[in-house]
Amino acid sequence: MPVSKEIHLKSIPAGMPVADNFELVETSIPDPGDGEVLVQNLYMSVDPYMRGRMRFATTGEVLMGAAIGRVVASGNPDYSEGDYVENGFGWREYFIANGRGLRKVDESLVPLSAYLGVMGMPGLTAYGGLLVTGEMKDGETVFVSAASGAVGNVVGQIAKIKGGIAIGSAGSDEKVAQLTSEFGFDHAFNYKTANPLKELRKGAPEGIDIYFENVGGTQLEAALTHMRAYGRIPICGMIAHYNDDKTPTPGPRNLTETIYKFLTLKGFVVSAFEEMRPEFQKDMSDWIKSGQLKYHETVIEGIENAPQAFMGLFTGANQGKMIVKLA
Amino acid sequence: MPVSKEIHLKSIPAGMPVADNFELVETSIPDPGDGEVLVQNLYMSVDPYMRGRMRFATTGEVLMGAAIGRVVASGNPDYSEGDYVENGFGWREYFIANGRGLRKVDESLVPLSAYLGVMGMPGLTAYGGLLVTGEMKDGETVFVSAASGAVGNVVGQIAKIKGGIAIGSAGSDEKVAQLTSEFGFDHAFNYKTANPLKELRKGAPEGIDIYFENVGGTQLEAALTHMRAYGRIPICGMIAHYNDDKTPTPGPRNLTETIYKFLTLKGFVVSAFEEMRPEFQKDMSDWIKSGQLKYHETVIEGIENAPQAFMGLFTGANQGKMIVKLA
Repeated sequence: MPVSKEIHLKSIPAGMPVADNFELVETSIPDPGDGEVLVQNLYMSVDPYMRGRMRFATTGEVLMGAAIGRVVASGNPDYSEGDYVENGFGWREYFIANGRGLRKVDESLVPLSAYLGVMGMPGLTAYGGLLVTGEMKDGETVFVSAASGAVGNVVGQIAKIKGGIAIGSAGSDEKVAQLTSEFGFDHAFNYKTANPLKELRKGAPEGIDIYFENVGGTQLEAALTHMRAYGRIPICGMIAHYNDDKTPTPGPRNLTETIYKFLTLKGFVVSAFEEMRPEFQKDMSDWIKSGQLKYHETVIEGIENAPQAFMGLFTGANQGKMIVKLA
Repeated sequence: MPVSKEIHLKSIPAGMPVADNFELVETSIPDPGDGEVLVQNLYMSVDPYMRGRMRFATTGEVLMGAAIGRVVASGNPDYSEGDYVENGFGWREYFIANGRGLRKVDESLVPLSAYLGVMGMPGLTAYGGLLVTGEMKDGETVFVSAASGAVGNVVGQIAKIKGGIAIGSAGSDEKVAQLTSEFGFDHAFNYKTANPLKELRKGAPEGIDIYFENVGGTQLEAALTHMRAYGRIPICGMIAHYNDDKTPTPGPRNLTETIYKFLTLKGFVVSAFEEMRPEFQKDMSDWIKSGQLKYHETVIEGIENAPQAFMGLFTGANQGKMIVKLA
């Protein structure tokens, strides 16, 4: 009967999340009953989308999120001790499940933590958002904001694999340099110091076909202005707006650009691509093995540091996927 | 050799167009040569989209726009004296054409001026924007702004013909009353005095499937908030933003609504629907004859009053399609 440390939402963040919005709680976990499994989480994920969810969350309850765990005891014939399972029960060390919401993962394909990143939700978000929602055709020009993030980085690399031109923005000169030197982006810029529109004109003199939207604000305005006719803007996130409190960040003032250019903006969440997961994992593991697709992780140790890892997403503390290692 | 009065763009409007942006010029029109036709315009159209075009127009040249004319002399075997032709050579009394850009219209189907409204560009814009870009399915709930305008009015009526619920906004209590009493809208409100979000909740307690966007600003924000999952926003115009000068009207602050609701915003112009014009004119003339679709016109007489008619579009001077009668 293990004792599990877990993180509860103590209060709903107003603006930027702060340490005091979270609370570490210890719970005793019973033995699994008939049909149940006891899972120990090894890695958990923190992601920007969780900030949006917190607006609707119930305080005093444990937070949810993607994690990779190991079955430590099983009363369910579908799972054996030692199975590795992707699950949605993050922000805690142990949990009991009835089998629903678990998905076995193959640790021989890629390292386990990759199932929280390029092989998991962020990877599938990038893959589906670019190729399905964004309808990318081979050779098109793609701009992605938050390009050093877990999703953005994969978007740019898939654009290159598909014969396109990749332009990315990030929040530090170091990250920007890495986008071109390491991840094969054709052009990258620091959105904090450069003028996004000038940079887009430099990186894509003939305009962009797809803007993969993670940020909002001035980058969306610049993209709208520089889109080519029939361009598409898959809206994955708008991180600049997530911590808006009483005075929301203004929206784009130039949505009229959509009219004469027949532009499409389309919001989506990763659940839309569930059916293509096998195809996605095959492509992705092939690309990783062949060296066409690279990834980084920032690993923070210990569940007590999960809130800090989460808050770090909004200050640019991560390089690639932010992971919390639990065991 | 007639003398034609025509309206030139004297200067590009900064903000709201004013009389001084326009100039009345008289020109002598030669006889038509081989292959040419001389057309006398009987009616011309003024439309909000022209404001957007003016930003890129050349000053000192005659303005362009839809008109209905009569062939008064022809050196072109395809046209005979007395033919009525829809054309893009408005803002002038006479012109010479080589036949390109003319389309014969059937004066027996509907009154000639209707080819500038419900049977012409605004009607086709409504029809294609709602049914193709907006992908309206029978029975869906449609909100349209500028619902007393030439396009918006038809959008709401087609929504009703397709078994849906129609909600409209307009800028005066008189227009609002007319939307429900005369045009069959289920709910209507005055966007200048009412709270758009409250009105949408009242008119469509379960949310809206389509927002046909003509205005922008607070109505777009309210629509985004009240859209149902998988809702669509065909963007036809954003009249609130057309006269933005140095301080553009802020864009919607809640585009993040698109993400979890899988919303699509899609800009379009009427040229996208050219291929469906025959189908559209058949449907529309049937609906007019059966009394299912009604229309109003505001007719201003004389080309010298065309600028005033145009400016009136931005102050709500028209009821239904604004037409200038030239002869």
